[in-house]
Amino acid sequence: MNFCSNCGSNQLQFIVPEGDNKQRFVCPDCDTIHYQNPRIIAGCLPVFEGKILLGKRAIDPRKGYWGLPAGFLENGETPEEGALRELHEETLAKGHIKHLQSVFSLPQFNQVYLIYLVDLISDEMGTTSETLESKLFEVKDIPWEDIAFESTTFALEEYLKNPEAKMTKRGHFIWEKEKRFGI
Amino acid sequence: MNFCSNCGSNQLQFIVPEGDNKQRFVCPDCDTIHYQNPRIIAGCLPVFEGKILLGKRAIDPRKGYWGLPAGFLENGETPEEGALRELHEETLAKGHIKHLQSVFSLPQFNQVYLIYLVDLISDEMGTTSETLESKLFEVKDIPWEDIAFESTTFALEEYLKNPEAKMTKRGHFIWEKEKRFGI
Repeated sequence: MNFCSNCGSNQLQFIVPEGDNKQRFVCPDCDTIHYQNPRIIAGCLPVFEGKILLGKRAIDPRKGYWGLPAGFLENGETPEEGALRELHEETLAKGHIKHLQSVFSLPQFNQVYLIYLVDLISDEMGTTSETLESKLFEVKDIPWEDIAFESTTFALEEYLKNPEAKMTKRGHFIWEKEKRFGI
Repeated sequence: MNFCSNCGSNQLQFIVPEGDNKQRFVCPDCDTIHYQNPRIIAGCLPVFEGKILLGKRAIDPRKGYWGLPAGFLENGETPEEGALRELHEETLAKGHIKHLQSVFSLPQFNQVYLIYLVDLISDEMGTTSETLESKLFEVKDIPWEDIAFESTTFALEEYLKNPEAKMTKRGHFIWEKEKRFGI
């Protein structure tokens, strides 16, 4: 952040505002405090007749790898709406929210994930600008070696341990790279 | 948003970027797309020996009314850390996360709430710049008429219906004013 988005000042200071205990970008010209906060990723674990829908990513990061439909929640949306929007944007599939399946955070990326179990209304799906291929996988055929993100592997594993569980995880998801690189 | 926070341009356009389907503030000078997303409120439902801790708000909105400790999640935090931080900042109390108690959203305010059931480690608490009074209430003494926000009433009611339930609510919380004013 180089300039105040309110008044255009280039004199922003990264300081602890009065009455606060955390550094923020503060504009000395118009007194605006620019808060920065984590973002929510709303996603789906979409199921049809016991099979799980995955999308092969058409965009980086992890292009060509398989993932669950998910993306940043937009202003004005509920997480459920965001999850179903991402489902359709990425795979053209449609479904109904069954329940919240997992909640986890990646604080190193300022992200909180809300993943919903979704009943697909049919096996209709397709490719999009975001997805090279959309496919329903029998559990035995899930391409574990080609999953895009370890958070996806995690949500899938937790679901398969107990498909009826309404909440399989709370808390900080430890990103595998964090463990590997000791971040 | 009047100016680009990256380059200071005053030529921001509110348009749908290429490949997107939603209007964003886009800078024609440096091509930065300024995304705006919902924020997370992390909060506690703090319990000690069957009593519930509420704080009397020292600040507006709803100064003088009782609420659950809660506030905006900060970058770098997990929601659990944020909930316990707010507990201590508002009431000086300390506790342990038991489980996620309720999840609901106020999309009209671009907010998603994550409320955690918290076991307090003691009955130590106090007043702060944010709280005129911190007090443990027997269930029968909860000041229902003086609760600051209907989301607090909601979380309390859901907890009392079934104190052991791990998730009492998912989905869009209908704000009472929205119903009243037909927003």
